[in-house]
Amino acid sequence: MTLTLALDAMGGDAGPEMVVKGADLALRQAKGLPLCYLFFGDNLAIETELKKYPDLQKISNIIHSETIITNQTKPAIALRSGRKSNMGMAIDAVAKGQANAVISAGNTGAYMALSKILLKTIEGIDRPAIPAILPTLKGKTVVLDLGANIDCTSENLVQFALMGEAFARQLLDIERPSVGLLNIGSEELKGNAIVQAAAQLLKEFPDLNFQGFVEGDDITSGKTDVVVTDGFSGNIALKSIEGAAKLVGHLLKESLGGSLRGKLGYIIAKPAFKQLQTKSDPRLYNGAVFLGLKGIAVKSHGGTDFVGFANAIGVAISMIQHNFIKDIEERLSILISRDKQPVSTLTVEV
Amino acid sequence: MTLTLALDAMGGDAGPEMVVKGADLALRQAKGLPLCYLFFGDNLAIETELKKYPDLQKISNIIHSETIITNQTKPAIALRSGRKSNMGMAIDAVAKGQANAVISAGNTGAYMALSKILLKTIEGIDRPAIPAILPTLKGKTVVLDLGANIDCTSENLVQFALMGEAFARQLLDIERPSVGLLNIGSEELKGNAIVQAAAQLLKEFPDLNFQGFVEGDDITSGKTDVVVTDGFSGNIALKSIEGAAKLVGHLLKESLGGSLRGKLGYIIAKPAFKQLQTKSDPRLYNGAVFLGLKGIAVKSHGGTDFVGFANAIGVAISMIQHNFIKDIEERLSILISRDKQPVSTLTVEV
Repeated sequence: MTLTLALDAMGGDAGPEMVVKGADLALRQAKGLPLCYLFFGDNLAIETELKKYPDLQKISNIIHSETIITNQTKPAIALRSGRKSNMGMAIDAVAKGQANAVISAGNTGAYMALSKILLKTIEGIDRPAIPAILPTLKGKTVVLDLGANIDCTSENLVQFALMGEAFARQLLDIERPSVGLLNIGSEELKGNAIVQAAAQLLKEFPDLNFQGFVEGDDITSGKTDVVVTDGFSGNIALKSIEGAAKLVGHLLKESLGGSLRGKLGYIIAKPAFKQLQTKSDPRLYNGAVFLGLKGIAVKSHGGTDFVGFANAIGVAISMIQHNFIKDIEERLSILISRDKQPVSTLTVEV
Repeated sequence: MTLTLALDAMGGDAGPEMVVKGADLALRQAKGLPLCYLFFGDNLAIETELKKYPDLQKISNIIHSETIITNQTKPAIALRSGRKSNMGMAIDAVAKGQANAVISAGNTGAYMALSKILLKTIEGIDRPAIPAILPTLKGKTVVLDLGANIDCTSENLVQFALMGEAFARQLLDIERPSVGLLNIGSEELKGNAIVQAAAQLLKEFPDLNFQGFVEGDDITSGKTDVVVTDGFSGNIALKSIEGAAKLVGHLLKESLGGSLRGKLGYIIAKPAFKQLQTKSDPRLYNGAVFLGLKGIAVKSHGGTDFVGFANAIGVAISMIQHNFIKDIEERLSILISRDKQPVSTLTVEV
């Protein structure tokens, strides 16, 4: 089966040049997997770039859009242009079944809102969430939501837990992922009412490997396979982790640079340091999925280069290959059937 | 002037043995500063320990308490015992002016609640907050609140900002500390209503070096001298940073251990690695102040050893030496006088 990918060619700070070059790299990284690209945006601008990559050109189609939105376009205007813009048309291609996934490095707010309107959420999901896969002491952990939903109800958190579970099952290949709910530590002050209510709902959820509350340091310790939180705390946790990693690197450099032995040791061990640096290259973690939609939409960082964009395309391919949406639909059917059950059958048990 | 310190001898997982040993170390670290210790708790248990340190014994008094609360006592019971327990009596010594500060490694919830009742909050402050001083790329940053207040109003956040500002001015010796409000990144979704309202209030606050919103990674980048947030996000950010530092250390070890060159480089640069490890010893960061009270109360981590407890005593000494409470009272008088102003003078301006 050929995988068809809809690319918003005008999104991202660097526009078509970066998107087309990234698509070319992703094609080579896909190693023979049959791909087809649909580039949405300005015909001329895309064609100019495509000409540079003959192999890429063969498997690509350009779909011209009269309305062009870039990362400089105000989100409100981007939204109003709906399915007529490069971004909207790319999303709509997935909604219409013409493409298997859409990838854009455009404005997050507009992209999320348009995706929600055009692709619709899976039944049982109120809002899409953005997960991240983070390295831990034990392996990898899925954290969500990372900023799509600032104010969350306990029901939202339960939905995130189910989406995170399905994501970990499919993408981390864990049969029965353990799930933790992010909270603060002290025994007697276990978070706010929303977190407490969510914990209760998760505890009662059938066949869920819920491990209760986890704390900020448990994200990177890998205590659970999935960490669930609202978008405000999740975004702050993720960025705090990024910042801390930078700080430790800086302090290490300072410490090593402060003595002759340190400098010498660094030179000798340089390949090991380089290896660590390569492994933690943020471009390799680029590509955030909007979880909970009926189609696959991947958001690339707006400021990324072609390497990062190619990685975002890779995430989309991986999402298509795993039967993620079906998995989550099945999981959610429990929630839905429970909600639809008349109250009487719950209370008149004999 | 002799500094009198009230110590809860029964708090902490290791009890009097750890507290007394820590007090001895702090005495030696104070290098001739005239200190006097008041130990609150079980007479016999404290005396047994004190006998081991003749120099310490000379400057120490034991105040026996009939009601003993330890870290195994339930917080509710600890609270009910009020000022009759070792913890309550130690706090009360500060309230009555018999001691300059109280230090306890006891239960956080009970200690915070009793301190609030016995010491009272500074006029204009609704709730005490717990700050931390974190290392950054540029130096040090004050972050608050770290878990004392889960649900905060925008007014609470403004009070935290003023307390943090005074704390940074006095303890980091910065004349006009810059203040940032923790939020999530995306331009179009700038946090919830509480954070937005707080930002507005801070922007309008006279003579405050408010720099607007900062993100999770700005905590360790040192973008501002003070980072203000509610206790839920603050606790998660702090613990996420701790966890990330551990993870980077682990990945580095793995990377260095994976090759001969890595191992060799590590051995040669070992003093530099050790230096970094020593600098980041969590015991050296032990001692959290309850900011916003009319007296100085320092919370030591319950699981710390004597080195950590000595550091918590050091924090208390440093708080006494800086005129912290007076500084914050002056700063808050602006808030109070503004609140007390009759509305008419604000509206009938001609």
